[in-house]
Amino acid sequence: MAVELTHLDESGRPRMVDVSEKPDTDRRAVAETTLRMRPETLEAILSGGGPKGAVLETAQVAGVMAAKRTWELIPMCHPIPITGVSLSFLPEPPDRLVIRADVRTTGKTGVEMEALTAVSVAALTVYDMVKAIDRGMEIGPTRLLQKSGGKSGDFRRED
Amino acid sequence: MAVELTHLDESGRPRMVDVSEKPDTDRRAVAETTLRMRPETLEAILSGGGPKGAVLETAQVAGVMAAKRTWELIPMCHPIPITGVSLSFLPEPPDRLVIRADVRTTGKTGVEMEALTAVSVAALTVYDMVKAIDRGMEIGPTRLLQKSGGKSGDFRRED
Amino acid sequence: MAVELTHLDESGRPRMVDVSEKPDTDRRAVAETTLRMRPETLEAILSGGGPKGAVLETAQVAGVMAAKRTWELIPMCHPIPITGVSLSFLPEPPDRLVIRADVRTTGKTGVEMEALTAVSVAALTVYDMVKAIDRGMEIGPTRLLQKSGGKSGDFRRED
Amino acid sequence: MAVELTHLDESGRPRMVDVSEKPDTDRRAVAETTLRMRPETLEAILSGGGPKGAVLETAQVAGVMAAKRTWELIPMCHPIPITGVSLSFLPEPPDRLVIRADVRTTGKTGVEMEALTAVSVAALTVYDMVKAIDRGMEIGPTRLLQKSGGKSGDFRRED
Amino acid sequence: MAVELTHLDESGRPRMVDVSEKPDTDRRAVAETTLRMRPETLEAILSGGGPKGAVLETAQVAGVMAAKRTWELIPMCHPIPITGVSLSFLPEPPDRLVIRADVRTTGKTGVEMEALTAVSVAALTVYDMVKAIDRGMEIGPTRLLQKSGGKSGDFRRED
Amino acid sequence: MAVELTHLDESGRPRMVDVSEKPDTDRRAVAETTLRMRPETLEAILSGGGPKGAVLETAQVAGVMAAKRTWELIPMCHPIPITGVSLSFLPEPPDRLVIRADVRTTGKTGVEMEALTAVSVAALTVYDMVKAIDRGMEIGPTRLLQKSGGKSGDFRRED
Repeated sequence: MAVELTHLDESGRPRMVDVSEKPDTDRRAVAETTLRMRPETLEAILSGGGPKGAVLETAQVAGVMAAKRTWELIPMCHPIPITGVSLSFLPEPPDRLVIRADVRTTGKTGVEMEALTAVSVAALTVYDMVKAIDRGMEIGPTRLLQKSGGKSGDFRRED
Repeated sequence: MAVELTHLDESGRPRMVDVSEKPDTDRRAVAETTLRMRPETLEAILSGGGPKGAVLETAQVAGVMAAKRTWELIPMCHPIPITGVSLSFLPEPPDRLVIRADVRTTGKTGVEMEALTAVSVAALTVYDMVKAIDRGMEIGPTRLLQKSGGKSGDFRRED
Repeated sequence: MAVELTHLDESGRPRMVDVSEKPDTDRRAVAETTLRMRPETLEAILSGGGPKGAVLETAQVAGVMAAKRTWELIPMCHPIPITGVSLSFLPEPPDRLVIRADVRTTGKTGVEMEALTAVSVAALTVYDMVKAIDRGMEIGPTRLLQKSGGKSGDFRRED
Repeated sequence: MAVELTHLDESGRPRMVDVSEKPDTDRRAVAETTLRMRPETLEAILSGGGPKGAVLETAQVAGVMAAKRTWELIPMCHPIPITGVSLSFLPEPPDRLVIRADVRTTGKTGVEMEALTAVSVAALTVYDMVKAIDRGMEIGPTRLLQKSGGKSGDFRRED
Repeated sequence: MAVELTHLDESGRPRMVDVSEKPDTDRRAVAETTLRMRPETLEAILSGGGPKGAVLETAQVAGVMAAKRTWELIPMCHPIPITGVSLSFLPEPPDRLVIRADVRTTGKTGVEMEALTAVSVAALTVYDMVKAIDRGMEIGPTRLLQKSGGKSGDFRRED
Repeated sequence: MAVELTHLDESGRPRMVDVSEKPDTDRRAVAETTLRMRPETLEAILSGGGPKGAVLETAQVAGVMAAKRTWELIPMCHPIPITGVSLSFLPEPPDRLVIRADVRTTGKTGVEMEALTAVSVAALTVYDMVKAIDRGMEIGPTRLLQKSGGKSGDFRRED
């Protein structure tokens, strides 16, 4: 098996991979997650101040702030000064809400984790804001849609 | 519609609900998520130092630390001094890994968000540790399994 | 002079005052600040999504989150698990916006600093959101309006 | 009205503006705030270990540390690795204390928010250190004095 | 061997021990470390603004702030709302500086880690403040002097 | 005395030294600390899941995460986006454990503090994980082994 786990050092203990020699390049990653909930929950979110209402606003602020702190949460992630984050919320009635994050930076490592963290925390925030009416809500699948920049090449999810 | 979103104040703007009057009670929440990956990725994780190997160790530490910081990530969450967190990793060959978190506290609010945050960050950490070999990995469904304590009553997922 | 600075120890160096012996009591503090800006800036804020629009939403989330982290910012502040935070925004056309925060806890120390930090960070966030059109905006006076709970007695600003 | 709020995306929800294409340039910002207090409070601060005494030392450390964490507090602020921060405290007897912060970086965005955050947290720290003797103290006006670097041009307050 | 590592769960992975059932009691811990440096470095520290000068002031603030954040740094530490922290600096000419921290809380777990973290970060801060003149400075031994409260009984170092 | 403390400004108050004019260069620092414990404690650590067991895994994750947050802990440290961190644990039976950290970046300032912070927090984590069986454990000497990059020249400890 050609598999190589670059996060494991010779003794099997985790380390933060040395990227000192990598050049700074433009990086971008887009990730997405989906919330499945009761139809009346989605209605409440969308009318709770409307499509720009408070639930989604709060989730968006939380997602942006979490993207910036990804390296504090994910142990072996490099600290990256991200240059742009944008979240969008796409209702899919009657019972789904899709959250998508688009993250950019100029740096030595990709921003997949930042995009995935942004949608994850945004989704957790939606859950928190409406859990009083729908504890059964489910989050996922959370996944990377695309990634560009860096020597590992571009990635684009096919399905 | 009888729906009431307790996070919205009269003007529709978010607030942290006042729980000053609520008594301190024992609280517990269990949440779970599932990672779906390529079979060779799961093999690598499980043999990467074995079932106690580095990927899962790192994910577990990350999950515990994230549980403690939930209130910093989720805007309207109350700060809670949690009294116990335990994560377990359950491989479901050939291509799934289930992560479960059990969180406890004695306080005025529940710990659902802490349990959900713990499994979410643990899953993101697994993704980070092996993304070099499997960018297509998917996280979810992330969901609450059970909750006890507090006046809103107990919750136990049926399916 | 009977003045006593409880934050200074015998050698003049700062310390976090020991409150171990103090009882847990209900505490509340209300603080306020005012932003002065160009009339068209206030119009933009109020119509930028309306009175519940994005500037104020973002500022409110930022203020609540900052209140929770006050003890990380103010060196000698005690960590306090606050039980409630509410911010309100009161436009005073043509050129002023008042921000008020009401913070509650059950604990050994007051929450004046939490209320003052909440309005300060909310005001800085408003500045950040519109600075591209009004760098001359001014923040203040920032001040405590009232405080209750604790043995030092209640406080209510007279002017 | 030519007003454009660059923090609002097409649907009115906040985003972190993409600055990927902006060049790294030298940036500097100077901000200031003023505390108004009772004359005996100012005397206590200045003699509480002298003009270099503990209140001002603590406030200065707090201000520098807060400048570094500005992007954690202000939701749509970009993370910036600041290269220098300096705070100065200028007593204006009998009842005022001016705090000024000078912040520098080499980066894609300005450091106005870092300078404003530094003086705000330094002022809150002064308040915290002496609030036991003067709860009526007021903070402000907090304002930007000057800014240089970046394509939006230099700014210098006239009054 | 009767040794039992309470931080390891059945599968050898770390967890945050559940202390839900433990009563809240008064806790106190005192820790100490020693810096060994060149004599002229100690002179510089002591005269750099005098014995209350800037190096020690900064180190003290850093130590107090770090004590509050111990649970963010040490993965399996419980979050504890500490009620008091005091650091003292004891010069031992010609070449030593002792730092001692006294931490208190009312809670379910001890504050040994908080006291040890306070002196460690205070010492690192001293190093940072004077490293330009003495990179060879050494920190340690860092150790617990005493601990009281809790069912594991009191501890007092004998040597 | 030619001693110059670059962290003190003209009035003796601390500041974050301005490094705007310094070029970005490759930086590296290696630091080390030693834990002295009872022989049965070292045995427990080494067999507690084996040499790759849970105590050392947890300590390694904690050390890496702390390295990234050094600038949040040490007041006058510059925020640095570190590009690599690696920790190693070297048992010296019967009663010692050496921890070494190797940190790299490309930036304007050195990474001595990051390496020293990494080993300090890793050591505190080891203490926390086994303190139930050995409260007398001692940490130190903690010291810089080598440093390269930057105009102050290279450093290599001789003893």
